[in-house]
Amino acid sequence: MHDLLVKNGAILTMDRHGTQIEKGSVLISEGRIAWCGPEKDQPADGASRELDAGGGLILPGLINSHTHAAMTLLRGLADDLPLETWLTDHIFPAEQNLTAEAVYWGSMLAALEMIRNGVTSFCDMYLFAPQAARAADQAGLRAVIGEVIYDFPSPSYGELENGFALTRELIRNYKDHPRITGAVMPHATYTCSPPLLEKAGQICGDLDADMNIHLAETKVETQGIVEKYGKRPLEHLKGLGLVNNRLWIDHGVDLNHQEIELLAEAGVRVAHCPESNMKLASGVAPLDEMLARGVAVGLGTDGCASNNDLDLLGEMDSCAKLHKAHKLDPTAAPAEKVLSLATSLGGRVFGHDDLGRIEPGALADLIVVDTDTPHMTPMYNPVSQLIYVARGSDVRHTVCHGKVLMQDRKFTELDEAEITAKALEYAVGLRG
Amino acid sequence: MHDLLVKNGAILTMDRHGTQIEKGSVLISEGRIAWCGPEKDQPADGASRELDAGGGLILPGLINSHTHAAMTLLRGLADDLPLETWLTDHIFPAEQNLTAEAVYWGSMLAALEMIRNGVTSFCDMYLFAPQAARAADQAGLRAVIGEVIYDFPSPSYGELENGFALTRELIRNYKDHPRITGAVMPHATYTCSPPLLEKAGQICGDLDADMNIHLAETKVETQGIVEKYGKRPLEHLKGLGLVNNRLWIDHGVDLNHQEIELLAEAGVRVAHCPESNMKLASGVAPLDEMLARGVAVGLGTDGCASNNDLDLLGEMDSCAKLHKAHKLDPTAAPAEKVLSLATSLGGRVFGHDDLGRIEPGALADLIVVDTDTPHMTPMYNPVSQLIYVARGSDVRHTVCHGKVLMQDRKFTELDEAEITAKALEYAVGLRG
Repeated sequence: MHDLLVKNGAILTMDRHGTQIEKGSVLISEGRIAWCGPEKDQPADGASRELDAGGGLILPGLINSHTHAAMTLLRGLADDLPLETWLTDHIFPAEQNLTAEAVYWGSMLAALEMIRNGVTSFCDMYLFAPQAARAADQAGLRAVIGEVIYDFPSPSYGELENGFALTRELIRNYKDHPRITGAVMPHATYTCSPPLLEKAGQICGDLDADMNIHLAETKVETQGIVEKYGKRPLEHLKGLGLVNNRLWIDHGVDLNHQEIELLAEAGVRVAHCPESNMKLASGVAPLDEMLARGVAVGLGTDGCASNNDLDLLGEMDSCAKLHKAHKLDPTAAPAEKVLSLATSLGGRVFGHDDLGRIEPGALADLIVVDTDTPHMTPMYNPVSQLIYVARGSDVRHTVCHGKVLMQDRKFTELDEAEITAKALEYAVGLRG
Repeated sequence: MHDLLVKNGAILTMDRHGTQIEKGSVLISEGRIAWCGPEKDQPADGASRELDAGGGLILPGLINSHTHAAMTLLRGLADDLPLETWLTDHIFPAEQNLTAEAVYWGSMLAALEMIRNGVTSFCDMYLFAPQAARAADQAGLRAVIGEVIYDFPSPSYGELENGFALTRELIRNYKDHPRITGAVMPHATYTCSPPLLEKAGQICGDLDADMNIHLAETKVETQGIVEKYGKRPLEHLKGLGLVNNRLWIDHGVDLNHQEIELLAEAGVRVAHCPESNMKLASGVAPLDEMLARGVAVGLGTDGCASNNDLDLLGEMDSCAKLHKAHKLDPTAAPAEKVLSLATSLGGRVFGHDDLGRIEPGALADLIVVDTDTPHMTPMYNPVSQLIYVARGSDVRHTVCHGKVLMQDRKFTELDEAEITAKALEYAVGLRG
C-alpha cells in the first residue's frame, strides 16, 4: 500500500530523456516516487490516498533558487526608484524594524504564496533565518536556509560572531531534516570583508555545508570590487579559496567568458533572477552561455521587494522572453530549457540529482496544473503552454515530500486567513 | 433609479488628476458613469442592481490596443523559432485552413479570456472580420475591428476588391453601434502596395474611419522598405498622404527621433506590444521617448501565436520591467505611466476622451480586482500592486458599457464550456 496516488494527468517527468506520459499516474511512498507511468500499467497495490489531476499536467514541484521569503512584508513598499534611494531610504530603514516574529509571519505568507504557485523548494537568505526554517518546516516545504551575514551589526544577531554561531547552529539543527538544510550565507563581496568570507568558508568545510552569496549582480558591483581589491568579484572569491562546488551564487549577471568557464570547471551553481534583474535594471545574465558550458543554473524570484511576487511560472515566461529580446534571437532561452531551470536543473543547483524530476526514487515533490480553461485552450505543446501561458493561479494541487499541501486551490495544512492577517499586522509595523 | 451600483472598493479613477478614492462607489446609467465618489457622499437615488467590490480595487476596464483575437486557435502552435520559419512553416499554412466559423469561435474564446482578464476593449485586425465583430457584439465587449487586407489573395475575401468592399460594409454596418467600430486595416507596408494603401486611405476619408497598420516592427522591415521605396516605413506612409490623426500604428519599435516627432505632430497613435516584441525578438519600442513627446500610446498583447495570452495585467508588468532592463534605468516605465497605457491613454488611442477613466459622463467600462489574497498582501501602493503583482486571475468582476459580463469570476452572458469546446474543435481543424 502506497501513501499517495496522483492519477489522471499528462506527466512531464523532466527526466534525462524528457519523457512525457500522455495519460499517466504517480505512486508515492515515504516522501519518494515509488512508480510513475501510463495509467494502464499502474501496479495493483494501490494507495491510501488519491489525488485526481483532472486531466491536467503533472510536473515536478517548482524550485525557487533565490529568494528572501519574509520580504513579502515589503512587497511594493517602494518601486521605480534608483537602486541607492530604494535601498537606503526604504528597504534598509524598514528592515531595522524587523523582529523574529515578523520574519516568521512574513515567511509563512511567502509559504502560502509559494504553495499556491506550485513552488515546493526555495533557497532563502534573510535575517532571523531560524524563523524562516521554522516556517518552511511547518508549511511542509523543502528549503535551503541561511542567516545573511555582513560586516556591520545585524538587526537579527547583532555582532558578527553571533552570526557565525547562529549559522553553525542552524546547519547542525537541521542536519538530519528530510526537507530543511542550513547553509552559510555571506551577503556579498561588497558587504563582507575577506576575513568574514574566509571564516564563512571555514564553516562550510567544517560542517560540509553550501555557501550562497549574491555575486556579479551589476557592473557597478564589479567596479567597486575591482577598485577595492584589484580583482573582479569571482576572482576575488577565488583568491579566498571559495570558488568550489560548495558555492552557489545569486544573479551572476556581470560575468565574462573566462568567469563562465571558471564556474563550469569548479562546479559552481547559479541562481538566475530575470525579473528582479529587469526591475532593478541590473543587466541581463549570460544564461545561454552558462547553459552551453554546462553550468547548473536555477531560477530565482528574488525577494518580493524587487519582483514583486513569488510566481515561478510567471518568472519562466519573463526568462524566456527577456533573453530573446536581449539577444534579438527568438530561439534564445527556449521553453524546454527554461522549464528545466525551475525543475531538473534547479534540483542540481540544490545539490540533488533526485529533486526536480518525476521518476522512481526521486523526492516526491510534484504539482498539477489545470488545462481545461479558456486561456489554456488549445494546447499544442504542454511545455510551451506552461512557460508562455500558465501562471501560478493555474496550479491546482501541490505536493511536497509526498504530502498534499494544496488540493483544489485550498490549503490542507495552513490557515490562510490567520497567516495573511498576522503578516499584514507585522508589515504595518515595519513602516515604523 | 440607476442601472448599476458598484460599491465597497477603492477607486483608481485614472482621471486627469490621478484621483484615488479610498472607500468609494460608482453609479451607472445607460452605459455611462453617472456618479462616482466616496461612499458616504453617494446620492440616495439607488440602482436596480448592485455589485459588491468586496474591498478590492475598482478601475477602468483594460484596453487592448492591438490583437488578432481568433489567433487564440493558434496559441502555442509553434514557439522559439526564427520569425521566417514560424510564419512560413506554421502560421500561414494554418491560416489557409481558416473559415468564418473558426474565426467566430476563436474570437469567442478570446472574449472569454479577455473578460476573465478584465479587458473590456480591444482593437482587432484579422481575417473574416465580420465574425470578430459578431463575437465582440455578442460577448458585450467594446472593439475596433477591421479586415486585414494585403496584396495577395486572402483566405477570407479572395481578391483585393472584395476586401475593400468588405471593409466599407463593416464600417457602415457598425456606424451607430454603441460598442463596435469598423476600421480600415492594411496589414503592413511590406505586404501592401502603394496603390492598395492609397485606396485604403481613401476609404478612411470617405467613411471617416481610422486606419490601423503594423508599422516599424523590426529593423529588417525598415531595411526592406528602404530598399524597395528609398524611404523608411513611416516616411513611405507620409509620402502616400496617410500620416494623420486617423492613423494608428501597431508596434512602432524601429522609430528614430525624427519619426517620433512626426507621430506627435500628426497625432498618430501607437499600440505598444512589449511581450510580442520580446518573444519574436523584434526589438524594444522607444516608449519613454514617445510618451515624453506626447504621443498617445496604448498597450497591445498582439495575437496568441506570439505572446501567448491576452492578459493585460501581465503585459503591464512585462512592459514596466522590459524598459527598465533595456535602458538600465529602474525609473523607466514607472507603474503609474504603464497603467495609463491600458486605461486613460489607451482610451485616447481608441479615439475617445471618455474611455479608460472612471468619472461622470465616461463610458461605463470597469473592473474589480481582488486584494484580499496572500500574494496581494500587503498593499502599500495600489498602482504598484496592480502592475507588479496582479494578474488576470485576480480580476473578480468585469463590466462593459454598464453591463456585468463577469461576476465573481463567473460569466453572466457566455457559455464557457460550449465556447471552449467549439474553439478546440476548430483549432484541431486548422492543423490540416
